Amino acid sequence: MAFPMPPHQTAYDRAATIFSPEGDLYQVRYAFEAVKKGWTSLGIKTNEGVVIAAEKRFIGPLVDIDDIDKIYKIDDHIGVAFAGMGGDGRILIDYARVFTVRHRLLYGEPPPVELVAKVVADVKQAYTQHGGVRPFGVALIFAGVNPDGTTKVYRTDPGGQYFSFKAIAIGSGEQVANEMFEKHYRSDMSLEEATKLALKILYAIIRKTVEDKEKAIATLPDQVELAYITVKERMFTKMTKEQVKEIADSMREELLQL
Amino acid sequence: MAFPMPPHQTAYDRAATIFSPEGDLYQVRYAFEAVKKGWTSLGIKTNEGVVIAAEKRFIGPLVDIDDIDKIYKIDDHIGVAFAGMGGDGRILIDYARVFTVRHRLLYGEPPPVELVAKVVADVKQAYTQHGGVRPFGVALIFAGVNPDGTTKVYRTDPGGQYFSFKAIAIGSGEQVANEMFEKHYRSDMSLEEATKLALKILYAIIRKTVEDKEKAIATLPDQVELAYITVKERMFTKMTKEQVKEIADSMREELLQL
Amino acid sequence: MAFPMPPHQTAYDRAATIFSPEGDLYQVRYAFEAVKKGWTSLGIKTNEGVVIAAEKRFIGPLVDIDDIDKIYKIDDHIGVAFAGMGGDGRILIDYARVFTVRHRLLYGEPPPVELVAKVVADVKQAYTQHGGVRPFGVALIFAGVNPDGTTKVYRTDPGGQYFSFKAIAIGSGEQVANEMFEKHYRSDMSLEEATKLALKILYAIIRKTVEDKEKAIATLPDQVELAYITVKERMFTKMTKEQVKEIADSMREELLQL
Amino acid sequence: MAFPMPPHQTAYDRAATIFSPEGDLYQVRYAFEAVKKGWTSLGIKTNEGVVIAAEKRFIGPLVDIDDIDKIYKIDDHIGVAFAGMGGDGRILIDYARVFTVRHRLLYGEPPPVELVAKVVADVKQAYTQHGGVRPFGVALIFAGVNPDGTTKVYRTDPGGQYFSFKAIAIGSGEQVANEMFEKHYRSDMSLEEATKLALKILYAIIRKTVEDKEKAIATLPDQVELAYITVKERMFTKMTKEQVKEIADSMREELLQL
Amino acid sequence: MAFPMPPHQTAYDRAATIFSPEGDLYQVRYAFEAVKKGWTSLGIKTNEGVVIAAEKRFIGPLVDIDDIDKIYKIDDHIGVAFAGMGGDGRILIDYARVFTVRHRLLYGEPPPVELVAKVVADVKQAYTQHGGVRPFGVALIFAGVNPDGTTKVYRTDPGGQYFSFKAIAIGSGEQVANEMFEKHYRSDMSLEEATKLALKILYAIIRKTVEDKEKAIATLPDQVELAYITVKERMFTKMTKEQVKEIADSMREELLQL
Amino acid sequence: MAFPMPPHQTAYDRAATIFSPEGDLYQVRYAFEAVKKGWTSLGIKTNEGVVIAAEKRFIGPLVDIDDIDKIYKIDDHIGVAFAGMGGDGRILIDYARVFTVRHRLLYGEPPPVELVAKVVADVKQAYTQHGGVRPFGVALIFAGVNPDGTTKVYRTDPGGQYFSFKAIAIGSGEQVANEMFEKHYRSDMSLEEATKLALKILYAIIRKTVEDKEKAIATLPDQVELAYITVKERMFTKMTKEQVKEIADSMREELLQL
Amino acid sequence: MAFPMPPHQTAYDRAATIFSPEGDLYQVRYAFEAVKKGWTSLGIKTNEGVVIAAEKRFIGPLVDIDDIDKIYKIDDHIGVAFAGMGGDGRILIDYARVFTVRHRLLYGEPPPVELVAKVVADVKQAYTQHGGVRPFGVALIFAGVNPDGTTKVYRTDPGGQYFSFKAIAIGSGEQVANEMFEKHYRSDMSLEEATKLALKILYAIIRKTVEDKEKAIATLPDQVELAYITVKERMFTKMTKEQVKEIADSMREELLQL
Repeated sequence: MAFPMPPHQTAYDRAATIFSPEGDLYQVRYAFEAVKKGWTSLGIKTNEGVVIAAEKRFIGPLVDIDDIDKIYKIDDHIGVAFAGMGGDGRILIDYARVFTVRHRLLYGEPPPVELVAKVVADVKQAYTQHGGVRPFGVALIFAGVNPDGTTKVYRTDPGGQYFSFKAIAIGSGEQVANEMFEKHYRSDMSLEEATKLALKILYAIIRKTVEDKEKAIATLPDQVELAYITVKERMFTKMTKEQVKEIADSMREELLQL
Repeated sequence: MAFPMPPHQTAYDRAATIFSPEGDLYQVRYAFEAVKKGWTSLGIKTNEGVVIAAEKRFIGPLVDIDDIDKIYKIDDHIGVAFAGMGGDGRILIDYARVFTVRHRLLYGEPPPVELVAKVVADVKQAYTQHGGVRPFGVALIFAGVNPDGTTKVYRTDPGGQYFSFKAIAIGSGEQVANEMFEKHYRSDMSLEEATKLALKILYAIIRKTVEDKEKAIATLPDQVELAYITVKERMFTKMTKEQVKEIADSMREELLQL
Repeated sequence: MAFPMPPHQTAYDRAATIFSPEGDLYQVRYAFEAVKKGWTSLGIKTNEGVVIAAEKRFIGPLVDIDDIDKIYKIDDHIGVAFAGMGGDGRILIDYARVFTVRHRLLYGEPPPVELVAKVVADVKQAYTQHGGVRPFGVALIFAGVNPDGTTKVYRTDPGGQYFSFKAIAIGSGEQVANEMFEKHYRSDMSLEEATKLALKILYAIIRKTVEDKEKAIATLPDQVELAYITVKERMFTKMTKEQVKEIADSMREELLQL
Repeated sequence: MAFPMPPHQTAYDRAATIFSPEGDLYQVRYAFEAVKKGWTSLGIKTNEGVVIAAEKRFIGPLVDIDDIDKIYKIDDHIGVAFAGMGGDGRILIDYARVFTVRHRLLYGEPPPVELVAKVVADVKQAYTQHGGVRPFGVALIFAGVNPDGTTKVYRTDPGGQYFSFKAIAIGSGEQVANEMFEKHYRSDMSLEEATKLALKILYAIIRKTVEDKEKAIATLPDQVELAYITVKERMFTKMTKEQVKEIADSMREELLQL
Repeated sequence: MAFPMPPHQTAYDRAATIFSPEGDLYQVRYAFEAVKKGWTSLGIKTNEGVVIAAEKRFIGPLVDIDDIDKIYKIDDHIGVAFAGMGGDGRILIDYARVFTVRHRLLYGEPPPVELVAKVVADVKQAYTQHGGVRPFGVALIFAGVNPDGTTKVYRTDPGGQYFSFKAIAIGSGEQVANEMFEKHYRSDMSLEEATKLALKILYAIIRKTVEDKEKAIATLPDQVELAYITVKERMFTKMTKEQVKEIADSMREELLQL
Repeated sequence: MAFPMPPHQTAYDRAATIFSPEGDLYQVRYAFEAVKKGWTSLGIKTNEGVVIAAEKRFIGPLVDIDDIDKIYKIDDHIGVAFAGMGGDGRILIDYARVFTVRHRLLYGEPPPVELVAKVVADVKQAYTQHGGVRPFGVALIFAGVNPDGTTKVYRTDPGGQYFSFKAIAIGSGEQVANEMFEKHYRSDMSLEEATKLALKILYAIIRKTVEDKEKAIATLPDQVELAYITVKERMFTKMTKEQVKEIADSMREELLQL
Repeated sequence: MAFPMPPHQTAYDRAATIFSPEGDLYQVRYAFEAVKKGWTSLGIKTNEGVVIAAEKRFIGPLVDIDDIDKIYKIDDHIGVAFAGMGGDGRILIDYARVFTVRHRLLYGEPPPVELVAKVVADVKQAYTQHGGVRPFGVALIFAGVNPDGTTKVYRTDPGGQYFSFKAIAIGSGEQVANEMFEKHYRSDMSLEEATKLALKILYAIIRKTVEDKEKAIATLPDQVELAYITVKERMFTKMTKEQVKEIADSMREELLQL
């Protein structure tokens, strides 16, 4: 072959079932790249509840953006958003839903958020260790309220790991978002403050491609999905475009300064 | 090997189950190419119903073009058209039909349009993640009227994703068609207007290979399939050649100006 | 490797389950080559019925040409001829026969011609999408009379597609034959005229290797198989050598002029 | 690789499941080579019955040539001989026997000769289309008398095809044999004449390696197996060495002139 | 290939099922590298009981470090910590738990520690000998108190082996830790002394990245997990952050001198 | 690759399921090489019974040569010896024994010798035609007395063929042995003469590595196994070392002259 | 590839299921290398019983050497030691134990030693002939007393063969050990003498890495495992460290002279 390639890539990156000499799984790394190209999704936990938010990128005027979901309900107490390959994400969300229903039937109570994240991560792990398949090219953020009233946000990775976060973003805007989280996140935030932070972050990301600030603000109800679960009601609730617009309007000054 | 090839293609495009270092699945991309070479199909939604239209390219005088279908009924309330590899499309349409019948038997009601698009997309996703198979080289447009009276148009891709559209075309004429959609589509169109837009678009595509405008118009009843489902009747209806001719005649002046 | 090969062939043509960057399946293309080397077969539909004809090439004096079939009965109302790899064709014809018998048992009526062509094409499609097998190296012409009295001629391809034709030929003589069809076929032909056209076409093909016209005519009863199904009787009938000779004799002048 | 090889062989001949760009299956071709290296076998049909004959090559004085069979009985009315890989031939002959017994049990009558040839050819076809196996390196001649009294000789090839013959030879001497068949075979031969022709052909083949004519004649009872089935008795009968000798003696003058 | 690689690596390290000429399994070696990059975990046995400790590396302020476990309870009498790929570790810990529950159900008593280590090692061995999978990229330390009151610490390796240890560390700090064990471990240590030794070792490892000693001490309750099982109570007990802080405070002088 | 290799070997000898362009299976050939490196075994048939003999090569003083068998009883009337890979031989001998027991149970009589050789050869054939396995690296000599009193000696080859022999040897000494057979074997030998011939042959083979004739004779009882089955008793009997010594002593003069 | 490798290794050593042109299985050879790197184990048979001994190499002060076994009981009358890959050995020892228990249940008596060695060797053989696995990288010494009072020592190899030995050692010290066996082994040794010989041999091996003779002797109870089964009691007995020390002390003078 006439093309220079780094030797490890040439040699060890053709299957998830091959370790590189450094103990890495290159196919898992590449699956992460699929995640990094995805639309930005994020989750935040507060004492009052969790917020999930997701970017719905403008992909042409023919797409019926209102009919496309980026945030899904798993159960009353759990929501999920993803970044990466859409088909892969859908399959895993279906899996999580079936698991949750079965758990309710078997044990008469909803599963804790972590358990749902874990079973999805277990499926992902299996796809990194067995031949004839590829890893899932998707990361998911499961956010919810546990039966004991604690709030949780988990991210599952293509490699089969999951971590607990206070607030986390995934997808193409994850760097911008996580930097803003590091600056603005406080564990004693109200749910309202967390919602506004989520909107602000997605506005910052949208602004990268939309020059005009006013236009960017105007586009928010269309291009941002927002959902929350309160500790009190434990009922996954997706905001209407009107509700998003209302919040965006209330933050107008703040957004214009970004 | 003596032939220069871009290194990624050489290395990562031999199986759908291998990610490229950028997180892409090249085999899925190539399957899209098969779609782009297919005959043009399109779907439009209006408040009054949906329109499906498809080009039946002239492939020689021996073919009995009247006996070839490009638009299929899935159920009374759903129709489908496809672009890409014919055998692949047929298999998936059969699958959608069986799913729909089962849904009616199990739940006593027809499935929503999105659910049909989703189960077909799930099959497609599986063929991008498991070894020993290739992705489906076909895109499908499912258009229909939901039990709640809303109209829907979905496109499923070889990679296992699906999106909701106001109007969308696939196949070799998709660029021409989608540009015309962007210019002429209005969400408050009547079903009749949508039907005419569909015919106009396919005429524009046919005109690319037929110099003589009159001849192109004359060929429309033979080379265009048109179907619609109204919100009121929810009954998939394919137009006869006479009906297509009638519409074409009524648009004569408009078409001659293209 | 020291031998120059076009890069795509080198790279993408070793398995039916690999798309080339242009979205092609090279193994399916190569299977078409096997078809193009086969003995010529053809089918014609008329309002009075269908005609199937096939060339039985001279392959040495030891072969008992009378004991070799190139046209097979699927059911009373359907016949089939093929071009390409004989073993592959036989398997698919058996499959079609079993399907037809089952259909009769299950539904109490014979299947329409298209359904038989479709189930065979479905098998072929599966052999282009799943690993560990090769596509079928054979094309088949199913010709018959539907329960509703319409006549049909379908060609199934190695790639899993099928099309409806007025008249079509496959195999090594398909170009000659189809050009003659384009010149001489009329949809209002009588069955007798169609039979004569079939014989004329196969005579033209045989003449490519037999210099002497008289000899070529004399050889027709041995090297041509002719079958027909009338709309009235719906009974697959293969002509005897005597019957073929009679027709050939009646066309003598016409053939000598070719 | 430093060794020049024709590009097609290099590229397409490693598996039966890969078509070459010309639509050939190289592995099937190579399996034919195994047949062409086998011991010569032949079959002849006459109106009175069929003759099967086979060469038993001298492979050293320690081999108990009398205890080695080259012609096998499938049923009273069918015999078989093969050329190529012995193990492969044995497996297929066993398969044919089991099929024949089952046919008798199921239908209360012996199967026609062609059906037996066909089921064996079907097995061979499967071994050319599915991965993980190689084609059978053997050709078989099935000869017999049908329930309707007609006589049949079929040859099944490694590629899964079979043909009907008046007389046919396979194996290393097939060219010599078939040339002699073309010269001497007459469809109105008596069974005795056919038997003598078979012996003459095998003598001609043995003479290629045995200089001395007398010695070659003397060796015939040891190195030739002869079997026949008459239309009247329909009973597979293998000749004893004495019977072969008797015929050889009666043909002495004729053989010495070859 | 233009890149020089040691020949053995090139040739024998692509699958766990291939021995190198020296009798090594390179893929197993590479899996060890994944272990060596993991967070440090350790286990110590004393006559009074066992101590398990693990480092929870700081991976950004957004991670909810309190919600991440590095030490898991297998049963009342057994705990486990791991180093390496998190998903792999989780799968094996689940397996060990299920095994333990089954053992209790079947035999009415808890399994000895070694048996749990052994069944996990058996799974790992299988993943080094069968194709289509990769070895587990994780080492586990099982520590516990046997039904007979003896204390045990086992390490299972990616290759399927396990060994009994007095004290052992795995992961990126294993060299530092094991050197400190060799210096300070005494088999007559009290459980308290062992706990302090564990904390001291993890402090030493944390100090590698945290310059300021005070800061490193302050971080201990967050970044160190400590658990113990006493021979008397046989009850896996994880320390609270307050308990860790208390011990850290009591060792303040000693730590500052490191 | 920098090393010159004959092109066919490079290309076609990596799997038993690939034919070379000449129609050969190289892996089967290589398996024959494993046979040719094995310890010599031989079988002889006479009218009085069969003799089986085998060399037990000296492989160091620690091996308990008396506890190693080279000749095995299959049933009272059949014995077997092998040359090649010991593990492979053992598996096939077990298979033959199970077959024989089943045959007795099913049919109430012992199987003929050929049938046992055939079923073992059938297993071997399967291992040359199906992927994912290698051929058996072993040849076996089955010798015995049929229920009808005839004596038989069969050799099964790695390729799945078997032949009937008067006398035959396999293994590293097969050339020497078979040349001696050709010189000294007579079909009217007594069993005693055959036994002596067997001993003489193995002595000749041992002499190739043992200079001193006396020493070679002395070593015979240790390094030669002898077994026989008489037509009269049909009872597999292995000789004791004393019996071998007795025969060797009786042949002393004859052996010294070799 | 730029690195010179012997052509056979390059070509034929990537799978156990490929013969080299010389009829060798390279992967099996490489598995032997894994054995040769293992800790030394040995077995001796005497008329009074069998001795099994094994080296437990010093692998650092943290390992609890007392808790590591190198000799295992299979049944009262059989013990086993191994050299090579620990995980592989464990799996096969478990297999042998389960087999033995089943044999006792089925037949009401313990299996002979050879049968246990044979079933383990059968498993090993299967792993050299079927694809998708690697051979076992371990040799085992089964030593025991048969139901008939005879004593037996068998070694099973990675290739699936087993041999009977008077005395045999495997592992890194096998050459030293076997040379000492050849010099000192006598078949009329008492069990005590055999035990001492075993200890002497392992001392000689330990001495290769421990300069100081006294230190080497002192280390014996820790680094040597000794077990025996007497013909009289047929009860597998492992010696305590004290018992080993006692014997070592009694041999002090002899060991110092080595």
